[in-house]
Amino acid sequence: MVLVSPRNPLNIGAAARAMANFGFDQLTVVAPYEPHWREACSAVGAEALLQNARRTESLAEAVADCTLVIGTGTLTSRKAEQKVVSLPSLAPLVEQELAHGGRIALVFGSEKHGLTRADLSWCQLLVEIPTNERQPSMNLGQAVAVCLYEVATRALPSAPGAATPVPITGQAAAPSASLDLLAGVVEETMLAAGYSPRSMQAANRHDLRLLLRRLAPNPGDARRILGLFRRVLWRLRQTHEGR
Amino acid sequence: MVLVSPRNPLNIGAAARAMANFGFDQLTVVAPYEPHWREACSAVGAEALLQNARRTESLAEAVADCTLVIGTGTLTSRKAEQKVVSLPSLAPLVEQELAHGGRIALVFGSEKHGLTRADLSWCQLLVEIPTNERQPSMNLGQAVAVCLYEVATRALPSAPGAATPVPITGQAAAPSASLDLLAGVVEETMLAAGYSPRSMQAANRHDLRLLLRRLAPNPGDARRILGLFRRVLWRLRQTHEGR
Repeated sequence: MVLVSPRNPLNIGAAARAMANFGFDQLTVVAPYEPHWREACSAVGAEALLQNARRTESLAEAVADCTLVIGTGTLTSRKAEQKVVSLPSLAPLVEQELAHGGRIALVFGSEKHGLTRADLSWCQLLVEIPTNERQPSMNLGQAVAVCLYEVATRALPSAPGAATPVPITGQAAAPSASLDLLAGVVEETMLAAGYSPRSMQAANRHDLRLLLRRLAPNPGDARRILGLFRRVLWRLRQTHEGR
Repeated sequence: MVLVSPRNPLNIGAAARAMANFGFDQLTVVAPYEPHWREACSAVGAEALLQNARRTESLAEAVADCTLVIGTGTLTSRKAEQKVVSLPSLAPLVEQELAHGGRIALVFGSEKHGLTRADLSWCQLLVEIPTNERQPSMNLGQAVAVCLYEVATRALPSAPGAATPVPITGQAAAPSASLDLLAGVVEETMLAAGYSPRSMQAANRHDLRLLLRRLAPNPGDARRILGLFRRVLWRLRQTHEGR
């Protein structure tokens, strides 16, 4: 589980407690606010979990080894840029990914504004908790509890409500870090090829990140595409220098 | 939803917030601790719900008009005296009760010790959230969120995951208050008949309450049984006086 910039120590403690309740133990925190993080580390029932939590500076780093990155949130004002699934329908997707040997991250944004558009561009999937339209926004600790309850009871192999194991066909997608590496080379290629002006660079980077997650190439294909772009880039630079 | 003697204002607020999130609006609080209750009433996103909450002195009063009373908790140290169901299996029971025109109460105990054995004797059913044995005890606000999520998404008629409506056969059980009335007359009868010593009165009362909830008579049958016991009691007293 990944918490991006959590603020309230009570919420951090509650999120960790819910993890312990449902048998999850790998927590990564992205750019926590230091004093609040230290305060949270004494949360009842989740001390060990919080003390063993991994800390990263960026979400990219937090999900680097994951093959399925699932963002959480409610889309009140914006349109999703990736596939959206309602929480009660999430289990089969998680089961399938685990059957393929994949590694999954469930990402929660800060209490204030949830996951940003940039955060979400690292996610293949956005899961929505079906809440009442008059009060759609959930407390962070409660949202974590509800999501982990659903996954633990309906998607994990030991879950009482889990379906019979999915036969292993196909392959897990390439991990997030491979996609980021590929995106970097594609971006350099776009620049080197004069594909679009430098002013569009941030927007292109965002769209590219999403595109690669929609494609979800498997590790072999990701390597192949990377090889191709590296070659193209080398060529472009040679040509340019040779002019 | 019924909260029995909640203590922590943050938990009361979180419970109310979860109700608003999942579209529930009828809250009853049993014997709240006054200062904390007042403090909780300003919880973000649930002010109206908390201000409209009904307050009762006893759980019996809180569930008087309910036909299915569901207690919540984890049975770590004691054996259940009523039917226990795991939360992921609760939906069909709730659906059926609603299809029969029943009225359901979901009861949560205080943070400190959950529902007492006495509280549970008003419940026909005990629902357990399947938590990890190393950290089974959930935070109150999170337990409420998880239970209401499950009911809202899988048992209510509008739920995306709800099964096709159950055909209406049978009838909802008699409400809790009728069972209490009946229990009172049966108890007087037991005493009048010298069925057991007065020292056993509390234990008998407890067992009787549970027995009636296991029987779950429909309203007509509850009236019939009551009529019978009233007659028997009248007779016992007459005989006694006539001696």
